[in-house]
Amino acid sequence: MKFLVSREVQPENSVVRVGDVAFGEGGFVVMAGPCSVESEDQLMACASVIADCGGQLLRGGAFKPRTSPYEFQGLGEAGLKLLALARERFGLGIVTEVMTEGDVDLVAAYADMMQVGARNMQNFALLKALGRCGKPVLLKRGPSATLKEWMMAAEYVLSNGNPDVVLCERGIRSFDSHTRNVCDIAAVPAMKEMTHLPVILDPSHATGRRSLVAPLSRAAAAIGADGLLVECHPDPDRALSDGTQSLTLDQFRDLMMSLPCRMLKA
Amino acid sequence: MKFLVSREVQPENSVVRVGDVAFGEGGFVVMAGPCSVESEDQLMACASVIADCGGQLLRGGAFKPRTSPYEFQGLGEAGLKLLALARERFGLGIVTEVMTEGDVDLVAAYADMMQVGARNMQNFALLKALGRCGKPVLLKRGPSATLKEWMMAAEYVLSNGNPDVVLCERGIRSFDSHTRNVCDIAAVPAMKEMTHLPVILDPSHATGRRSLVAPLSRAAAAIGADGLLVECHPDPDRALSDGTQSLTLDQFRDLMMSLPCRMLKA
Amino acid sequence: MKFLVSREVQPENSVVRVGDVAFGEGGFVVMAGPCSVESEDQLMACASVIADCGGQLLRGGAFKPRTSPYEFQGLGEAGLKLLALARERFGLGIVTEVMTEGDVDLVAAYADMMQVGARNMQNFALLKALGRCGKPVLLKRGPSATLKEWMMAAEYVLSNGNPDVVLCERGIRSFDSHTRNVCDIAAVPAMKEMTHLPVILDPSHATGRRSLVAPLSRAAAAIGADGLLVECHPDPDRALSDGTQSLTLDQFRDLMMSLPCRMLKA
Amino acid sequence: MKFLVSREVQPENSVVRVGDVAFGEGGFVVMAGPCSVESEDQLMACASVIADCGGQLLRGGAFKPRTSPYEFQGLGEAGLKLLALARERFGLGIVTEVMTEGDVDLVAAYADMMQVGARNMQNFALLKALGRCGKPVLLKRGPSATLKEWMMAAEYVLSNGNPDVVLCERGIRSFDSHTRNVCDIAAVPAMKEMTHLPVILDPSHATGRRSLVAPLSRAAAAIGADGLLVECHPDPDRALSDGTQSLTLDQFRDLMMSLPCRMLKA
Repeated sequence: MKFLVSREVQPENSVVRVGDVAFGEGGFVVMAGPCSVESEDQLMACASVIADCGGQLLRGGAFKPRTSPYEFQGLGEAGLKLLALARERFGLGIVTEVMTEGDVDLVAAYADMMQVGARNMQNFALLKALGRCGKPVLLKRGPSATLKEWMMAAEYVLSNGNPDVVLCERGIRSFDSHTRNVCDIAAVPAMKEMTHLPVILDPSHATGRRSLVAPLSRAAAAIGADGLLVECHPDPDRALSDGTQSLTLDQFRDLMMSLPCRMLKA
Repeated sequence: MKFLVSREVQPENSVVRVGDVAFGEGGFVVMAGPCSVESEDQLMACASVIADCGGQLLRGGAFKPRTSPYEFQGLGEAGLKLLALARERFGLGIVTEVMTEGDVDLVAAYADMMQVGARNMQNFALLKALGRCGKPVLLKRGPSATLKEWMMAAEYVLSNGNPDVVLCERGIRSFDSHTRNVCDIAAVPAMKEMTHLPVILDPSHATGRRSLVAPLSRAAAAIGADGLLVECHPDPDRALSDGTQSLTLDQFRDLMMSLPCRMLKA
Repeated sequence: MKFLVSREVQPENSVVRVGDVAFGEGGFVVMAGPCSVESEDQLMACASVIADCGGQLLRGGAFKPRTSPYEFQGLGEAGLKLLALARERFGLGIVTEVMTEGDVDLVAAYADMMQVGARNMQNFALLKALGRCGKPVLLKRGPSATLKEWMMAAEYVLSNGNPDVVLCERGIRSFDSHTRNVCDIAAVPAMKEMTHLPVILDPSHATGRRSLVAPLSRAAAAIGADGLLVECHPDPDRALSDGTQSLTLDQFRDLMMSLPCRMLKA
Repeated sequence: MKFLVSREVQPENSVVRVGDVAFGEGGFVVMAGPCSVESEDQLMACASVIADCGGQLLRGGAFKPRTSPYEFQGLGEAGLKLLALARERFGLGIVTEVMTEGDVDLVAAYADMMQVGARNMQNFALLKALGRCGKPVLLKRGPSATLKEWMMAAEYVLSNGNPDVVLCERGIRSFDSHTRNVCDIAAVPAMKEMTHLPVILDPSHATGRRSLVAPLSRAAAAIGADGLLVECHPDPDRALSDGTQSLTLDQFRDLMMSLPCRMLKA
């Protein structure tokens, strides 16, 4: 069987465009922003620094998958509106998560790129709906998904009509709790051998620890990833979700300065 | 925080009823049937033997989550109709999987118990919809879910209005491929310490190997599980899914005879 | 390649004898005792109850592998002498760990059965020395060893001249810290398909939690294990090692009474 | 408890010297060579290229830990003599594995640095003997060792009198067989936060695949590792061990040219 995602079917790299940002052309795309959209002030503070430092896309969650039903579930459509406002002000395309097929049309009305979270990597109804949504998709690897399963999840999107999928390694479940997950960084070149789709890395979820985010980001650039998805927040200690892994805005600025300069030109 | 699923909130065991079958009253409920509903002949052959041997519920998939989009995806509503026909003929309640919130009403119109598959354990939109569906829920553990995450997935159902949840251990991802998954059998008593909900075991997915299903079923009974979810098929080598882990109908009969007799009286 | 441990080379079960105790003849051998030998009083208290309840062998560590160099390392030869004294008084054969080839002769001078700890499963110098030691060997599975690797570790002992190896599943490393390890109970029948050697289970290390030891022991009996290695202590809260997983002597007595009676007759 | 390996006891980086090669001073030390020493021709071919390309130390196994007792076990002392000959000819210090305390004196008579393999990370008798051996130690992480356990293994060496330990991440066991192990690259900065000891990476064992070795090596440099341990062979397809993960000598040369040039100056 030949799969649409495979190098056998398409030997050359796919280029996935989000507005004028291109994944897979040799550049290194930095997507950054808060885990959750919490308020206009919080989001605009992030977007301003990201745009200023050369970040290319703004990420932020409006619909949040949370382990407990009593944790903050996101602002919903109000969060999407804030993201759209940030786009207007700072010229950054926006990436945000869609959790269920029923929300695909709503999220697609605002987002430039539709994110599938790790828990939903095999939510097949969602993947099929995204195949028909007309927007590029950012597909995170499930926490215990094999590379084969991850490729097949992308195949659900492609085979339903949407060729624009970017893959994101974000750490896998392992026995050691020193980091939130274990970053399977070798999956980046391993996937790129098998598939023509761009592959990026999320150093924030991969480690869960702020101090490890910048070193891992530099490793991602060195290993040939097509970009980063990184969390930052104006006041991480008061974040409503994922504070321990969010960079401060100053740390984000430092990270951007420490990336090899060729990385930021795409 | 006190959770609805916890022993702090409810010290005594919950009893979950599916028709006149009770989980959590001390008995051992055997749910059996094919992985996928494939045809009337196949399903009736299973149902006839299951009813004859003292099995209490019939399982069978009409909507199948499959790693690849090109694998058999189930018969859909036609499969549900066959399950309803088997119920009529053999008096067995039916358990079947629902994969997405959009199908909840359709599946609930046929099923006696709504199954959530392992990949969907944290499909929160689905869990919320099942909280309002009026039918008992069988919630499988995700392949890399912690016990805490599994409990919180159940909490999504209970907190949305449905107290009738049965938990099902079905093996977790591990490093050794000798079995499809590793059966975390100690999770059965460990969960029963923390939650009042019934806990059963799926020896078919836990091992992926026919020869290990019967020994593991006896271990499940011995460790205090409230029941089994087990796959059988009239001709496993020709099954459209999961053939290697399905018992033949003769093997299923032998398994039922080998369970401690007190087990089957509930 | 045909391996000495395989069913191809020897289809029938091996019977391993430790004095008049036999593993692999259909009985269920209970080996019990403290994690570490701490004092004469402690050891004799254990041995007295074990002998009284029908336990067949006494376990206790004189040389203790410990994660930190500053933790209690065992009494050494003084511990071995106490074990020998307990054997004399209560008629129980003794099982104790040997950590390095340099200690094989010393330990063999006292022990009836030589235990290889999980961390040493692939200490090949030790395995080779045990092949020539003239005593039966209890070989624990490494915390991340595949079944194939475990079999090959046993092959090192057999190929060096010693056919008397009993295998012990003791839990593997996994992502969930709810138990110390995850008990891969299906490894018991899976190994018995591939090898003729007896296979037992250690419910104490497999779970690390006292309350789970008895249920898991009953599951081990039900799944066809050839015996148990279980920790007990007269005062677990003051044990120098592994207190949280040690049964009290009363709990050990209760466990023995709860095992199926056919189990204790071998 | 304050541990000798911890940053609390020693805030500044340790520098470990092997002849005139220094780990932990900011440079990037490349140790390379064949998995097993097989013949004079093979070893000299490797050493010649390594010396020529700026590699600083020569690795090669004379005592090989192998899963099966029937696999090639290494040339033993003859292999050590060949390593010494290569040192003489090419001026490269040599790193080689010692598998058991009984061989420590023999190996120390030839080696410049004593390697502890992953399977032996918690071979405490070996670690204690290495504490007294007078040579620097290269301590690989066990395949399922936590960072805490790894640090404590090093503590066994330091507390027995030897401060010269270099740590080596070499991949951990995980559920996905796409690579031999999963490289926990974030362990490099995570360990360096906790301990003052140098930390290097072994991209060959971490992936098991030749094509992934160079990208992962560049990632190791970018993340702040103190060096590499990498396998190369003049004819990998005929190697007696680990051929699939060994670079050809041309690939090794290319790798060296692709590392950031500041890396090779230490």
